[in-house]
Amino acid sequence: MNLCILAMLFNLYMTEKPLILVTNDDGINAPGIRTLIEVMNTIGNVFVVAPDSPQSGMGHAITLDSLLYAEKLLVPNNTHVEYSCSGTPADCVKIAIRELLPKKPDLCVSGINHGSNASINVIYSGTMSAAIEAGIEGIPSIGFSLLDYTWGANFEPSKSFVRTITKQILKHGLPEGVVLNTNIPKLSEHEIKGIKICRQAKANWVEAFDKRKNPQGKDYYWLSGEFVNLDQGNDTDEWALENNYIAVVPIQFDLTAHHFIKELNTWNFKKENLKD
Amino acid sequence: MNLCILAMLFNLYMTEKPLILVTNDDGINAPGIRTLIEVMNTIGNVFVVAPDSPQSGMGHAITLDSLLYAEKLLVPNNTHVEYSCSGTPADCVKIAIRELLPKKPDLCVSGINHGSNASINVIYSGTMSAAIEAGIEGIPSIGFSLLDYTWGANFEPSKSFVRTITKQILKHGLPEGVVLNTNIPKLSEHEIKGIKICRQAKANWVEAFDKRKNPQGKDYYWLSGEFVNLDQGNDTDEWALENNYIAVVPIQFDLTAHHFIKELNTWNFKKENLKD
Repeated sequence: MNLCILAMLFNLYMTEKPLILVTNDDGINAPGIRTLIEVMNTIGNVFVVAPDSPQSGMGHAITLDSLLYAEKLLVPNNTHVEYSCSGTPADCVKIAIRELLPKKPDLCVSGINHGSNASINVIYSGTMSAAIEAGIEGIPSIGFSLLDYTWGANFEPSKSFVRTITKQILKHGLPEGVVLNTNIPKLSEHEIKGIKICRQAKANWVEAFDKRKNPQGKDYYWLSGEFVNLDQGNDTDEWALENNYIAVVPIQFDLTAHHFIKELNTWNFKKENLKD
Repeated sequence: MNLCILAMLFNLYMTEKPLILVTNDDGINAPGIRTLIEVMNTIGNVFVVAPDSPQSGMGHAITLDSLLYAEKLLVPNNTHVEYSCSGTPADCVKIAIRELLPKKPDLCVSGINHGSNASINVIYSGTMSAAIEAGIEGIPSIGFSLLDYTWGANFEPSKSFVRTITKQILKHGLPEGVVLNTNIPKLSEHEIKGIKICRQAKANWVEAFDKRKNPQGKDYYWLSGEFVNLDQGNDTDEWALENNYIAVVPIQFDLTAHHFIKELNTWNFKKENLKD
């Protein structure tokens, strides 16, 4: 009988805590996701499904022509559940929701990414594509990134901010079609001035390809480049980060450029003769 | 002297024709890109840089941790230039612009994709990520997709429409930050009612994972699913396609959900104690 009550209380306790799906694009062993798991374990019941290897720059890639593995891992003291998946970040979210999770999660958090996903980087980001994938499924969702791409990045100062933002989302929810993109400057906790709500800066990469020859004499290229921000606005994520703030940008996945529909309707789409 | 005049006339003729970058995500040998090259050769000077193998579902993936090859191919009668690249669609556009093209192109066209990139599919689409990548570089850009994912798809009815839309873009240009997503129904030319300017439908995939065992008894999964459109609007791309129209959606890559910034600014982001 006592056991029964204990079990009931345990269930009550368990069901009161939010179910949080955790994923990333740097792979399940990255220090960034380890920090995120630690923080989420103070907030809810944590269910991790993350790539078995690094997937940076994977954008919103999904696996169509190949199979997927998902392996349950051993977690010390069963503090949470972990699956390692052979797919992309977007695959991880799909398989988590459809196959692995016991029910629809209350929240999805992705990261903490090793490196910036501010401004145009959101387009290339596996971290953000995982968050967007959960958003498409109607799950409140956030991507977190630290402006330090190194494996040894110090995630300690991020913890309390990640926790604050997460708790605010759990409190307020997010409107349909919106997820949050959070970027954190590489600073100590007391140097970070606070959290700013921003728009995505109009910045881009100016690529330089490093052309080399392989041992057989054939040309090959390495993609590299320089990030160029010509956006002078003080309401952008890049401005916030340069001025020691955490940048939170609400992101949508309706890509329609609504402002251009009227103009486009004035164009003449009468079919031409292919031979003219 | 006559030769000189001929050369001048030739140069004049060449420089008058727009330089068109052609790419896709189904790979350089796909029938869809072959059709696109054929149509673009009637409009401008064609420069192809396309993946050496199929890249469907690659989203906006880029190659960061690996090298890239780009091979110039032999083209009968030198009607145009072709490069096969080992990277993703977005890589192809980057390397084309920075390394391979003689100058910045006047236009980028991507496709014709074998299969729909309407509504939420734009997110997963390698075809559209290539078009968006060119758009980021300030190049007017269009993605074309036919609603037939088979290799043997009939691209003949698409030709005159692809040409019409392309010529309209060359005439009008596109505003900064906007590219076009064009989807073509699987119909004969006379069955297609015309071209409609649309917004992206709020539709999504409901995935089903097909769980199997490999010969060693280990579980694996195939991603599959059903496309569900609950958007009843008659201004969407899905509506246009179901009603035998070609759907043209202007797409933007500023993902900021501007409408939610005001609300988000009312949230309390005062830092909590991590231990509370």
